[in-house]
Amino acid sequence: MFEKGYIDENYVRVSRDELFSFVVRVLTKLEVPEKDAEIVAHNLIMADLRGIESHGVQRLKRYVDGILSGGINLKPSIRIVREGPSYALIDGDEGLGQVVGYRAMKLAIKKAREGGIGVVAVRNSNHYGIAGYYALMAAEEGMIGISMTNSRPLVAPTGGVERFLGTNPIALAAPARDRPFLLDMATSVVPIGKLEVYRRKGKPIPEGWAIDSAGNITTDVEKVFSGGALLPLGGFGELFGGHKGYGLSLMVDILAGILGGGTWSRHVKNTSEKHSEVGHFFMAINIEDFLPPEEFREKMSRMIDELKSSRRHPDFERIWIHGEKGFLTMQTRLKIGIPIYRKVLEELNSIAESIGVEKLKAGGEDGRA
Amino acid sequence: MFEKGYIDENYVRVSRDELFSFVVRVLTKLEVPEKDAEIVAHNLIMADLRGIESHGVQRLKRYVDGILSGGINLKPSIRIVREGPSYALIDGDEGLGQVVGYRAMKLAIKKAREGGIGVVAVRNSNHYGIAGYYALMAAEEGMIGISMTNSRPLVAPTGGVERFLGTNPIALAAPARDRPFLLDMATSVVPIGKLEVYRRKGKPIPEGWAIDSAGNITTDVEKVFSGGALLPLGGFGELFGGHKGYGLSLMVDILAGILGGGTWSRHVKNTSEKHSEVGHFFMAINIEDFLPPEEFREKMSRMIDELKSSRRHPDFERIWIHGEKGFLTMQTRLKIGIPIYRKVLEELNSIAESIGVEKLKAGGEDGRA
Repeated sequence: MFEKGYIDENYVRVSRDELFSFVVRVLTKLEVPEKDAEIVAHNLIMADLRGIESHGVQRLKRYVDGILSGGINLKPSIRIVREGPSYALIDGDEGLGQVVGYRAMKLAIKKAREGGIGVVAVRNSNHYGIAGYYALMAAEEGMIGISMTNSRPLVAPTGGVERFLGTNPIALAAPARDRPFLLDMATSVVPIGKLEVYRRKGKPIPEGWAIDSAGNITTDVEKVFSGGALLPLGGFGELFGGHKGYGLSLMVDILAGILGGGTWSRHVKNTSEKHSEVGHFFMAINIEDFLPPEEFREKMSRMIDELKSSRRHPDFERIWIHGEKGFLTMQTRLKIGIPIYRKVLEELNSIAESIGVEKLKAGGEDGRA
Repeated sequence: MFEKGYIDENYVRVSRDELFSFVVRVLTKLEVPEKDAEIVAHNLIMADLRGIESHGVQRLKRYVDGILSGGINLKPSIRIVREGPSYALIDGDEGLGQVVGYRAMKLAIKKAREGGIGVVAVRNSNHYGIAGYYALMAAEEGMIGISMTNSRPLVAPTGGVERFLGTNPIALAAPARDRPFLLDMATSVVPIGKLEVYRRKGKPIPEGWAIDSAGNITTDVEKVFSGGALLPLGGFGELFGGHKGYGLSLMVDILAGILGGGTWSRHVKNTSEKHSEVGHFFMAINIEDFLPPEEFREKMSRMIDELKSSRRHPDFERIWIHGEKGFLTMQTRLKIGIPIYRKVLEELNSIAESIGVEKLKAGGEDGRA
């Protein structure tokens, strides 16, 4: 994942600023308010910068489709349904998930600033991009941030074969000395985006990621896409803890779905559909109400230093900390641009053409523009 | 795990009430205040009732050793260090982990009752038994309960070979129609107790649970105990998500350790030692501040019903929900008694003898008293 400035002829490079302004011009042309378009652009491009290609601008088409089909409400009345000093319940009125999520996390941070803790549950939203984006918003304010969302069903429960659970990510960010710790993980063995990469390359997937429609482990990615399912973190059955990934996914359904008066992943629909019923859960903890923030950061960094200098397995080059690879990738990409898969570039430009905005200015063909 | 009234000559049955009063008489004899002794007894026996033998009365010896060595403070001044309407930081003054944890979760529940959310971080505690015990306290009050604790180092980080992380459990309980949902999981592939069972039986462990001192996967349980380590949930390397289990374990170290002004698992010590520096994290969410509790319970139960009636893999008898096996085991054991391993019985009775309290009254020898 760590960007090494490789050359891959399937990719072109695009500068961060051009990509940002492209997303904004597409969305504003579709009558998304400019401030909202910028939030979505930030969210998608953070994913691309950090190397989470599956959640980057290649998702733009889905949002555009959702806008054109009427599945997304462009002028939502995002509404606080219930509220106390340390919590709120928000109805997203089917707005863009990033816009709803941004507002909700801002509110959680505000409450944490005032009273130590902010918890915000959200219903009637849409796909909100990478979970880590919201957790990092809190870390940038010196707080611990937590973010979860349910998502459309793709994962089978332990002992089951149906797509019932979402990949339901959990993200937690916390400040440290240099850069924040950032855990951002699907509760399945892998997110669906990983399978899409294997599919594109026509490669078999590792044994233990997913099952076919009969519920058996398969390495044939096509069998997963035609009626199969992903496995929860821990894999098939209980032997290696598959019931734990299954349980973490239900935890997300409870906090991000049911607690907000919403639903669970089985009933979550695509962005293009009306009432996709996505729910989120956000939490901010104001560290300075617990201990001096310098002590917190110092201990975080000592823990990280100890981890990095602990004895390594010979097959591993280093011990990574969560968020570190993404940060290093981001630093490179800010300098040399973001690699965009050629087919994605074509798709983005055909969107541009169809709605009448300027195409994306891509860089050199060697992937090093 | 589901109790079927099996016969195993290595076990005897003991009634729940006799086991409870035994634990209380041992602890009170050692000058633990009666109310505190009852909390510990409740906690240990809930583990035994639910089939989590590793955290049941077989742990009593460790607590007794901790008391006799002075590692546990029997008359702690459990102190609120900082406090706001929705949060608190507690110093456990090295008291029994169950006593400190019980007080802390009670406080989280009180705060949630008054203001919707209660978060309590705890430092300077000791091993607190099963994490689910505290989460269930909140569920019994109609709330969502979350409980985490760091623990002594047993797990290697992804790419590393040292015991650095704890098995750092995460528990979440939520009320439903019939009985609460209860996720209570170590963030390692398996808890150390599972390996102790394999060791006792002299059986090889499955490939993928643990590594030897060189960091390679081993099936030889003795190699794990002599300098090896457990693997995080997701297993070895990143291919099946081992970095996710590693990240969840750090999440617990951050919330239960560093946030409370305490430390991370690498520096956590055994119960017998002074300053074992165990930290906990508790949270209660008052559901009725978000939505009508009946709606919450009804949706929980519909989700559970849908899961149970979803299509099953032919190799599985049923689709289990978290907490269900433990509940069914408990119902059986309340009727026919708790199975106690003979060597554990001997150990308990030698404790009784050495401190001069009445021995444990065990039932019939066929395991069906």
